[in-house]
Amino acid sequence: MRMSKTFIKTLREAPKEETATNGALLTRAGFIHKEMAGVYDYLPFGMRVINNIENIVRDELNKIGCEEILMSTLQNPELWEKTNRWSDQEVDIWFKTEVSSGGIVGLAPTHEEPITNMVKNYISSYKDLPLYVYQFQTKFRNEKRAKSGIMRGREFIMKDLYSFNTTEEGLNKFYDDVAEAYMKIYNRIGIGDITFPCFASGGIFAKFSHEFQTLIPVGEDTIYYNKDKSVVLNKEVLLPEVLEELGVKREELEESPAAEVGNIFKLKIKYSEPLDLKYSDEKNKQHVVYMGSYGIGISRLVGVIAEAFADNKGLVWPESVAPYKYYLIGIDDKGAKAAEKLYKNHEELMILDDRDLRPGEKFADADLIGIPYRVVVSDKTLEKDSVEITDRRTGKTKLVSLKDFKKSCK
Amino acid sequence: MRMSKTFIKTLREAPKEETATNGALLTRAGFIHKEMAGVYDYLPFGMRVINNIENIVRDELNKIGCEEILMSTLQNPELWEKTNRWSDQEVDIWFKTEVSSGGIVGLAPTHEEPITNMVKNYISSYKDLPLYVYQFQTKFRNEKRAKSGIMRGREFIMKDLYSFNTTEEGLNKFYDDVAEAYMKIYNRIGIGDITFPCFASGGIFAKFSHEFQTLIPVGEDTIYYNKDKSVVLNKEVLLPEVLEELGVKREELEESPAAEVGNIFKLKIKYSEPLDLKYSDEKNKQHVVYMGSYGIGISRLVGVIAEAFADNKGLVWPESVAPYKYYLIGIDDKGAKAAEKLYKNHEELMILDDRDLRPGEKFADADLIGIPYRVVVSDKTLEKDSVEITDRRTGKTKLVSLKDFKKSCK
Repeated sequence: MRMSKTFIKTLREAPKEETATNGALLTRAGFIHKEMAGVYDYLPFGMRVINNIENIVRDELNKIGCEEILMSTLQNPELWEKTNRWSDQEVDIWFKTEVSSGGIVGLAPTHEEPITNMVKNYISSYKDLPLYVYQFQTKFRNEKRAKSGIMRGREFIMKDLYSFNTTEEGLNKFYDDVAEAYMKIYNRIGIGDITFPCFASGGIFAKFSHEFQTLIPVGEDTIYYNKDKSVVLNKEVLLPEVLEELGVKREELEESPAAEVGNIFKLKIKYSEPLDLKYSDEKNKQHVVYMGSYGIGISRLVGVIAEAFADNKGLVWPESVAPYKYYLIGIDDKGAKAAEKLYKNHEELMILDDRDLRPGEKFADADLIGIPYRVVVSDKTLEKDSVEITDRRTGKTKLVSLKDFKKSCK
Repeated sequence: MRMSKTFIKTLREAPKEETATNGALLTRAGFIHKEMAGVYDYLPFGMRVINNIENIVRDELNKIGCEEILMSTLQNPELWEKTNRWSDQEVDIWFKTEVSSGGIVGLAPTHEEPITNMVKNYISSYKDLPLYVYQFQTKFRNEKRAKSGIMRGREFIMKDLYSFNTTEEGLNKFYDDVAEAYMKIYNRIGIGDITFPCFASGGIFAKFSHEFQTLIPVGEDTIYYNKDKSVVLNKEVLLPEVLEELGVKREELEESPAAEVGNIFKLKIKYSEPLDLKYSDEKNKQHVVYMGSYGIGISRLVGVIAEAFADNKGLVWPESVAPYKYYLIGIDDKGAKAAEKLYKNHEELMILDDRDLRPGEKFADADLIGIPYRVVVSDKTLEKDSVEITDRRTGKTKLVSLKDFKKSCK
């Protein structure tokens, strides 16, 4: 990408009401634009980060046998009435709207009901199971408050996965597969070191569910963990009987704020029973299907990564999700020409800052946008057939031969 | 993809109320699932067709300098009141919904207003223009009727592009660029031969706008064209003065039903003026920005392609948008083993029908799903080191050497 061509410019200031660091920095750096509280547009840099995260999630889910679909936003009340999740008394975050030809529909805050109903077309025998489907979909939740930048939205992008098994053992096995896939995902997107599976309340159908919590100071949750973080639990299950069961004492646990970046639920027959999702076994006997559901907030992750690594100069992206790997700056005529040449062969990997600005301004933008490596080409570096590469995270600079740099662009 | 692994099965029947051919066939072949009138889910095959179409559109738009973004669905009334498009009297297809913290928001049926407002952050001087942004976004329109399968939806995927220029000449030039890019897109997705730019009403700001119309029997529009299709016009502009201006006589024109697959508008200052989008020129004088908007209904195109090519056996996909290129069937033990081997090296390109079914059932599914080439491997073909390839469109079968087939998979 050429800075001279993109419409994005970094902004001096974020809107005053944008109090969250992630919202303010992502706005100033040109990743997002706020439409209203909890509702954002994604600009070219933001789109690229989201695509990078989605591709990693997609890859890990495909590996464990999941198939991608895309469900609708508009929801038929009939389905949700069957599970007692349509009324505003039961679920208080619905957006509802009238259809001009008659009736009311809702904007999906999650998709258990329609997915369960849809797969009924495809499940009759035990031979049709297991079945694992997921989507990247825009969810709507009518939240009372939305002040955490893109970490808590009224409109947000979520990956939701649903599993359908013949038995509880099948569900348990797949649940573990997903937990493992989630940790691989967090590792690949750069937050593995600060993200932990965490015991949380399982509701009425299981003793525990699991959340994945990332330790960041602005996290909305409070978690407790022991020294080696082999036991991590959410405040809501910090109870004497739970501690005893997990074999850990209260005084061994440290407290930390954290942000939920994923959750996995054993739904069992909570939705399949009221929605009548059954299969017949080898002897043609009917059974209710066992279900699980598994979420990762994709746009929320963009905010969490921003919060986790940002410093006083701006954003810091892990290489795997960064909009671009290199921020290329040519200084003086000769440097500019060499930069052009490097850029032409590797446009997909880099931003070329070819604007008519002082190098200092370009350095500041490179830092604010948070591209992992700033690459400077100048008379001085060219004398040594080299480029100067600065690591955004550590701030360390080194000379790298043009040959080695080109090799790293393969 | 393995037919034994995917959750999708072809269905004997489509729902009774699915009267449109595209809706019925796409449902039976497992591409879509209907939630309610005009609202569909996209299943794995459907997702792949949509991704293929989007990638072609993206490629052609990037070539003419456009940048991809993603705007929100939820809309702030304030912006739309400025252009007089919020009231239900003016725009009668809004879905509107209440926010729990107070106020009403709408679900975007299009995005001129929020995009114009968003780019104000990035436009101050003539140096910031031109600017071209597009998105693939789910639109919502509260249509009274929705009976054309996925060709007219209440919820549908649209590519919308918006242009911002300093002058009318700049707008005109880009408008022509988009018209050219659109024809390249229609050619690449296989409907170029039956798709034509068509004069349509330009509203009050221009004499004409252009639609792109595809000749299909179930098209909702009526168009008129001369022999070589150099003049094509929509019924709404079939007026004596228009015919005279275009130098064509009524009796030289044939009538045909057609489906709109794209439209391009010169908005000029229709939205930039009320929304106060200005730039300053070299002399620091302020001017209103010239705008254009350009749409392609992505999910609608899936329906149009289905209608255009389907036959009595099922769907027929052009290779460029087909969910997979080959439908591979191994017959007998040796054939099945050879098919496995071919599949393993080219999973991305093909469906392997490894189900325990008679060949005739697999042939019928291959036809219904509409994969461009059915590839059969059997004792008989292997004797000649070959596979038998049947072209879905022409029905013609030929023996192709294993070597040549593998080459075609590169």
